Amino acid sequence: MKRIAVLTSGGDAPGMNAAIRAVVRTGLAKGWCMFGVRHGYAGLIAGEIFTLGARDVGGIIQQGGTMLGSARCPEFETVEGRMKALSQLCRHEIEALVVIGGNGSQAGAHALSLLGFPVVGVASTIDNDLYGSDVTIGVDTALNVSLEAIDRLKVTASSHHRAFLVEVMGRTCGYLALMAAIAGGADAVMIPEKETDPEVVATELRVAYDNGKAHAIVVVAEGARYNAEGMALYFQTHRERLGFELRMTRLGHVQRGGAPGSFDRLLGTLLGAAATERLADGKHGELVGLLKGEIAATPLAEVVTNRKTLDLGLLKLARTLAQ
Amino acid sequence: MKRIAVLTSGGDAPGMNAAIRAVVRTGLAKGWCMFGVRHGYAGLIAGEIFTLGARDVGGIIQQGGTMLGSARCPEFETVEGRMKALSQLCRHEIEALVVIGGNGSQAGAHALSLLGFPVVGVASTIDNDLYGSDVTIGVDTALNVSLEAIDRLKVTASSHHRAFLVEVMGRTCGYLALMAAIAGGADAVMIPEKETDPEVVATELRVAYDNGKAHAIVVVAEGARYNAEGMALYFQTHRERLGFELRMTRLGHVQRGGAPGSFDRLLGTLLGAAATERLADGKHGELVGLLKGEIAATPLAEVVTNRKTLDLGLLKLARTLAQ
Amino acid sequence: MKRIAVLTSGGDAPGMNAAIRAVVRTGLAKGWCMFGVRHGYAGLIAGEIFTLGARDVGGIIQQGGTMLGSARCPEFETVEGRMKALSQLCRHEIEALVVIGGNGSQAGAHALSLLGFPVVGVASTIDNDLYGSDVTIGVDTALNVSLEAIDRLKVTASSHHRAFLVEVMGRTCGYLALMAAIAGGADAVMIPEKETDPEVVATELRVAYDNGKAHAIVVVAEGARYNAEGMALYFQTHRERLGFELRMTRLGHVQRGGAPGSFDRLLGTLLGAAATERLADGKHGELVGLLKGEIAATPLAEVVTNRKTLDLGLLKLARTLAQ
Amino acid sequence: MKRIAVLTSGGDAPGMNAAIRAVVRTGLAKGWCMFGVRHGYAGLIAGEIFTLGARDVGGIIQQGGTMLGSARCPEFETVEGRMKALSQLCRHEIEALVVIGGNGSQAGAHALSLLGFPVVGVASTIDNDLYGSDVTIGVDTALNVSLEAIDRLKVTASSHHRAFLVEVMGRTCGYLALMAAIAGGADAVMIPEKETDPEVVATELRVAYDNGKAHAIVVVAEGARYNAEGMALYFQTHRERLGFELRMTRLGHVQRGGAPGSFDRLLGTLLGAAATERLADGKHGELVGLLKGEIAATPLAEVVTNRKTLDLGLLKLARTLAQ
Repeated sequence: MKRIAVLTSGGDAPGMNAAIRAVVRTGLAKGWCMFGVRHGYAGLIAGEIFTLGARDVGGIIQQGGTMLGSARCPEFETVEGRMKALSQLCRHEIEALVVIGGNGSQAGAHALSLLGFPVVGVASTIDNDLYGSDVTIGVDTALNVSLEAIDRLKVTASSHHRAFLVEVMGRTCGYLALMAAIAGGADAVMIPEKETDPEVVATELRVAYDNGKAHAIVVVAEGARYNAEGMALYFQTHRERLGFELRMTRLGHVQRGGAPGSFDRLLGTLLGAAATERLADGKHGELVGLLKGEIAATPLAEVVTNRKTLDLGLLKLARTLAQ
Repeated sequence: MKRIAVLTSGGDAPGMNAAIRAVVRTGLAKGWCMFGVRHGYAGLIAGEIFTLGARDVGGIIQQGGTMLGSARCPEFETVEGRMKALSQLCRHEIEALVVIGGNGSQAGAHALSLLGFPVVGVASTIDNDLYGSDVTIGVDTALNVSLEAIDRLKVTASSHHRAFLVEVMGRTCGYLALMAAIAGGADAVMIPEKETDPEVVATELRVAYDNGKAHAIVVVAEGARYNAEGMALYFQTHRERLGFELRMTRLGHVQRGGAPGSFDRLLGTLLGAAATERLADGKHGELVGLLKGEIAATPLAEVVTNRKTLDLGLLKLARTLAQ
Repeated sequence: MKRIAVLTSGGDAPGMNAAIRAVVRTGLAKGWCMFGVRHGYAGLIAGEIFTLGARDVGGIIQQGGTMLGSARCPEFETVEGRMKALSQLCRHEIEALVVIGGNGSQAGAHALSLLGFPVVGVASTIDNDLYGSDVTIGVDTALNVSLEAIDRLKVTASSHHRAFLVEVMGRTCGYLALMAAIAGGADAVMIPEKETDPEVVATELRVAYDNGKAHAIVVVAEGARYNAEGMALYFQTHRERLGFELRMTRLGHVQRGGAPGSFDRLLGTLLGAAATERLADGKHGELVGLLKGEIAATPLAEVVTNRKTLDLGLLKLARTLAQ
Repeated sequence: MKRIAVLTSGGDAPGMNAAIRAVVRTGLAKGWCMFGVRHGYAGLIAGEIFTLGARDVGGIIQQGGTMLGSARCPEFETVEGRMKALSQLCRHEIEALVVIGGNGSQAGAHALSLLGFPVVGVASTIDNDLYGSDVTIGVDTALNVSLEAIDRLKVTASSHHRAFLVEVMGRTCGYLALMAAIAGGADAVMIPEKETDPEVVATELRVAYDNGKAHAIVVVAEGARYNAEGMALYFQTHRERLGFELRMTRLGHVQRGGAPGSFDRLLGTLLGAAATERLADGKHGELVGLLKGEIAATPLAEVVTNRKTLDLGLLKLARTLAQ
């Protein structure tokens, strides 16, 4: 009988609980003993490892966040930290580990893997900046929360003939911002992958104003050169040119805490189940993700050395549609 | 046959459309001619007055914002501005005006009233700082939007063992913040009506942390002496004392643009209908609001000279419940 | 030190958990020992009584349903059943009981009270058919869930030029249906309190169709003489007269399980806290409810012998607004 | 300059408006003249064709349903009907048509195509039973509405120790039901593609009950041999075996009218834009859909002669996870 542990690491993402549940229940169905690790790598180092039964992961599929908790763990970035983690895994006789998380988490998974411990990663981050999965667990829900906010800002903007700068998350990745802009019918978008001159945005807003639009929305990625604050500052002295009165909103951590929608529940479930199946097939040192609409595994070595690219054709589409 | 106009003024509030619809349709049912004014007092001065039929206000009851638009209008604060407004009302042969809005709007309504023009006000502002209505149109929806955000922040806070400062709207009134704190199960709340020493909050957070709570929420009114930014600044150098990692979120204009819930749709409908009925009864110079669970009218003169008070007993209750 | 127990009984209602939390935490703040009873009167008879600490009621304010569970209990309607309940209360040295629920539950509370045991009721039922509270805990959320469904039905109805019959809950009370009709902008409404001839509805729908409306909504109370099924049957053979194609939807139990909105969380909190305060003041044999916008107590004897009436003026308003 | 028309047909689906907007605006960006057809093929036959400018499709991306309206049209299934449609297209000098809809709609598109008229189909139906697109526009939102209902039913079921039969849409396709079951953490699911003996469900429910689960959910596809009504009937006389009290809910048309989430807004936008691009490239007689995570075109001839299959491996997964 196998003894498998699962942890979540890095920023929490809606759907992580669905993944935990699927890892645990597919493992139990194989007759394995399943364990959870609290607070990510920090808990692993501290030996916060405990058994998980079928009932322990009941009623969590519809909840955001992660029931296992998460934490940043600088100590795990040191050799000493990793050796402590290994010795804890050893002490609890854990035979393999499933790591649910994004870039930093999978780098940790890769490090453990290089030390010879069997690890399978599950792609989960709302930033969608992880190589090895076209879409990661949490993105869809974060996007929906952002859209809900944008829809509401459009309502109040329309009542007052205003333009809103909306800053969405995504670290150095513009995926969330670009998708929120397209799905939110935004007038302009600023992402880190392709710098946009604020003057271009000014012109677009002016044109929208002159065309009689009742409001305008500019979606700004937090990692863009001009983020919402930067843009607000830039336009402070050029206000009259825009036509619209300008307001700024940073959506912040609210984007992270939504209850997972169907997409993230299903993705979490499918990837979690697949991670357990990979282990059952004797595979490890891989990340399980969604590639071209199908569940697929990518070696962790590849994951940590490649950078996911954003389809900039969508940026052009966003502009075409913002008429 | 009567000719009645309706306008919305000041910040938009969810439920204003329900009020517009009710004013118009109850008027039409009496055989009156109903008119809308675009962009509040600015549009009134500019003569943006147009007829409203039953179909024109169809399908708006479920929409946030105001279909009539709103705007700030410094000109209306001058005698000249008001005389222009009067002359436009005269030119369009309008016999009475319904003004849907908050403090500033009802001050304008009172001013017009003093000039002899029949005006009835309808109490609507998300800030709930208007004398003459225990709860105003828009408060319930704004509160629900805030709560939704707080619920989401609690989810991500729990995953990371964090405390969140959440700043909610309300200008100089702490109603929204206090209610959001009670309904959101917050650990502390800071309102303008009663200053709280940040040190007290620090102690409360520390106690919560030591009691093993997975997260903490502090709701801060935008008008509090220490707003979210102030609090974040204050704790920047005292961080270790809190236990929790501290994060800050300002909900901003998102609170304003929600689709009205049942309470605001019903309140908007009842107050709008009541405003028309007051005019039919030959009454004016009044604000229609909700007092002790019933629709009631208060003279505008009283409305503009009194300040609504907040029940500070609720502050004590909030503290009792935050165990 | 006092020992107080709390139970929920009858149909679950969103906000019951807020009430439980408030009862418990205000009691604990007084230094009392607080207890929960599982599964309503059935659990009381079975002696399912357990202590509740501050943490036990943490994180429940935002959850629908009741953490204590509920159940129907025919046995409690017998003298033997009640004596068993009393003996369990005695065995656990409980000094007073808080009963959160609607008509049946408060009848039980009254019965216990008549036997000499101190009981305070808290008004909670989505049906809003309980004398002693203008609005009961759960009504606002149930109404919002119904409205959300009505809004969605309007969307699909508009796309297909259809009329929808929507049946909402409320037992023999038309409150939910009437309010859903007003807030949902329905074209007609059928409630138990005032029978409507289906022919009148047919005419109203025909007029709406001929006026070019894209859709029509008829809200039907489950307790109306013609409920949704009855209406669908009635119109099966008269279809052509309506113009619109007719469809039927019964919202069912979904209305009950929503996450409580701000209104129900606040009402639950205020009534729960008030119930404990009444006991602290030595009062019992009462129901705590919301009367004319304020928390007020009504003798249980009065509650069980009176029937709440529905303001039929609102029915007229609903018709006026459905232009 | 090209003259292109777009219509929606069959059941409305959330995201259709995003598709209409994308078709129109990408066409306008090419300098084409864009037209809308009202009420599907019925409007085409009746010549309800009108120009669509950029502003006409503004503010619709976030709205459910279809701004163009839809209708069933038996006449279009006749040769005469199609010839009338062709002659209307000819009369308005339309050069190509985009048909947004599901199976019936694309059969119509194919028929027009066979008559020599350039048509491109866009895959949209909440039933997800259309060959040529792994997921169609509307499925994600319908699934989310279903899940929201299931989550609510679980809340009330838990309070009362009940089992709920939830019937979801999907015609003869079990996709929605199966996905709702997996994402909703259901205990059992019944789909048309694989008959399940009610006795098996009875056993599963009994096991769940005996394992101490507080509630149970059985998702039933409307097209399953035993739909919700059939199941309720079957268990009427075998009730005691289940342990749980059994209740039934049919979600009905509510599933159709949700506001589109991000997935359907993006899918609608991408497929709509792609349809216009296919026409620009001189392609037609095709359906544009999502295949293996990418936008791809499939000949309409293939679409109408093939039946999409459901991955029954997911049924096994659903069972494994329902522990």
